[in-house]
Amino acid sequence: MSKAGEPAVAVADWGTTRLRVWLLDAAGNVFAERRSDEGLLSAQPDRFGDILERQLGDMGAPATLPVIICGMAGSRQGWAEAPYATVPVSLAEIFGAAVSVPRTKRDIRIVPGLAQRDTAAPDVMRGEETQLAGAAASLGFGRHFVCMPGTHSKWVELVDGTVTRFQTFMTGELFSVLSAQSILSHSIGTETKVAADRPAFIDWCRNAVSAPAPVETSLFRIRAATLLHGLQPADAGAALSGLLIGSEIAAAKARFALDGGPLVLIASGAMHALYAAALGLAGFEIKTVDADDAVRAGLAETARYFGMMTGEGAA
Amino acid sequence: MSKAGEPAVAVADWGTTRLRVWLLDAAGNVFAERRSDEGLLSAQPDRFGDILERQLGDMGAPATLPVIICGMAGSRQGWAEAPYATVPVSLAEIFGAAVSVPRTKRDIRIVPGLAQRDTAAPDVMRGEETQLAGAAASLGFGRHFVCMPGTHSKWVELVDGTVTRFQTFMTGELFSVLSAQSILSHSIGTETKVAADRPAFIDWCRNAVSAPAPVETSLFRIRAATLLHGLQPADAGAALSGLLIGSEIAAAKARFALDGGPLVLIASGAMHALYAAALGLAGFEIKTVDADDAVRAGLAETARYFGMMTGEGAA
Repeated sequence: MSKAGEPAVAVADWGTTRLRVWLLDAAGNVFAERRSDEGLLSAQPDRFGDILERQLGDMGAPATLPVIICGMAGSRQGWAEAPYATVPVSLAEIFGAAVSVPRTKRDIRIVPGLAQRDTAAPDVMRGEETQLAGAAASLGFGRHFVCMPGTHSKWVELVDGTVTRFQTFMTGELFSVLSAQSILSHSIGTETKVAADRPAFIDWCRNAVSAPAPVETSLFRIRAATLLHGLQPADAGAALSGLLIGSEIAAAKARFALDGGPLVLIASGAMHALYAAALGLAGFEIKTVDADDAVRAGLAETARYFGMMTGEGAA
Repeated sequence: MSKAGEPAVAVADWGTTRLRVWLLDAAGNVFAERRSDEGLLSAQPDRFGDILERQLGDMGAPATLPVIICGMAGSRQGWAEAPYATVPVSLAEIFGAAVSVPRTKRDIRIVPGLAQRDTAAPDVMRGEETQLAGAAASLGFGRHFVCMPGTHSKWVELVDGTVTRFQTFMTGELFSVLSAQSILSHSIGTETKVAADRPAFIDWCRNAVSAPAPVETSLFRIRAATLLHGLQPADAGAALSGLLIGSEIAAAKARFALDGGPLVLIASGAMHALYAAALGLAGFEIKTVDADDAVRAGLAETARYFGMMTGEGAA
């Protein structure tokens, strides 16, 4: 059995654009941490093993330390496909559906994503289910709505630890492609870092949440405001961010028939600041769970399920 | 005075991505036509004159033939800025606001765009005002709503030949950036040519116009349908097109409080087919005006205003 201060398991959040790896001791404390840009997009299928071994080696992980992974590494284009679990599904059940990566010396398992197979509202997630599992313990039973902002924001209904339905919004990606690739790039330039207290962010977000008009009615107004009213680049970037985040919140309120009230926000850093401000404008009371803590807790839960946190797999 | 069959004026629609030039005789008949990709993006400010002269030379235009231009060549980043006329504005008045391009041997004039300076709904157009002027004669007096689809679709309210208000939708550009640059590119691949009678186009469009939900609720479903339901690339492209065009129509109906009824559609070719189908699904009766005919007619009107069509400027 591993002692405190000695790694019991390595856990990794391996997404589309980045990889984060932590070594945890038997109590779940962080022993070491690494972050890299070697996400799915830069890791060809045959390089996942090499990348992970290099990271683990650099962290001084023992050669037999077991590994739990969540995220896009489990997609069909990833390292080893972990087929989606279908909602409604209990978060406690998904651990058992983790798949072993074949032909590795270590015990490496990948947590499955979730699928909503409803033909009218098909949806998928990979990685967020592990954040939810990590956050669920602190939320307790009952009905919760959860917002997980990002490239592809997820809104989730959670009832007694079961994911009943969810909805993806491409908000982060819309900001990215519209600010860099569309006519709006001429208004925004390189001013894509947005502060949550910037008046242009607040104004455009408040308009989007309080008098919901279709987002496509407002997008070109950012360009027109540059040409006609001298909107400055940093304000144009903030306007686009406020408009898109506000529109996401308005659409989610309609989708789940929410009228403000308590909401769980799983987010970190700048993303947390923007969504906390926007959700406040929309009348939500927020309980925040740190996204990094949540994913690590969910991965540790999975390791416990497989008996790894008691040290059986540790060197 | 120029004879029939002899050019009286050259007219050009000079947009962001393309240039079209026609030689017209004194009656407005097309004497010659050229199309090129030398739009604003490829023509640096100091090359507009060279490009135009080469096109005119290739068409055998006399050296003193006057020229009327509309479109982005009149923007601040264009050849010579033609300041926006502010709505409400009579289409008959905008001809007089055309600006002469300085330091040219020919008489070259650029038609101004239109601006809606309303701080809550700022908007601009350049080029479409000339299509409207060309179409207005055939529409007659009264109140008309006009849809002009494209990279940046315009919906316009026209009352007795006056543009009272308008709204831009970035529909064509959203299709372009989302199909090429976002996660949806993995679903669509290179299948970006959409047929108006493809069931996936019809289905996604009908959903968008008949049960309007915010477009951002549906976008990621295209990706999920690929992963969960085997949506094929050509159908994914058609789905995105149907969703975006349907959402534009639903948003325009809300913006102008339309409930179907007569609508003028100024469009050509594949774009006309897609919008005619989509507007039909939304309950509109359509009167079509060909977009190429409309812009040429508007440019000819401008030439007549300046006395060019009677041949004063012709060699």
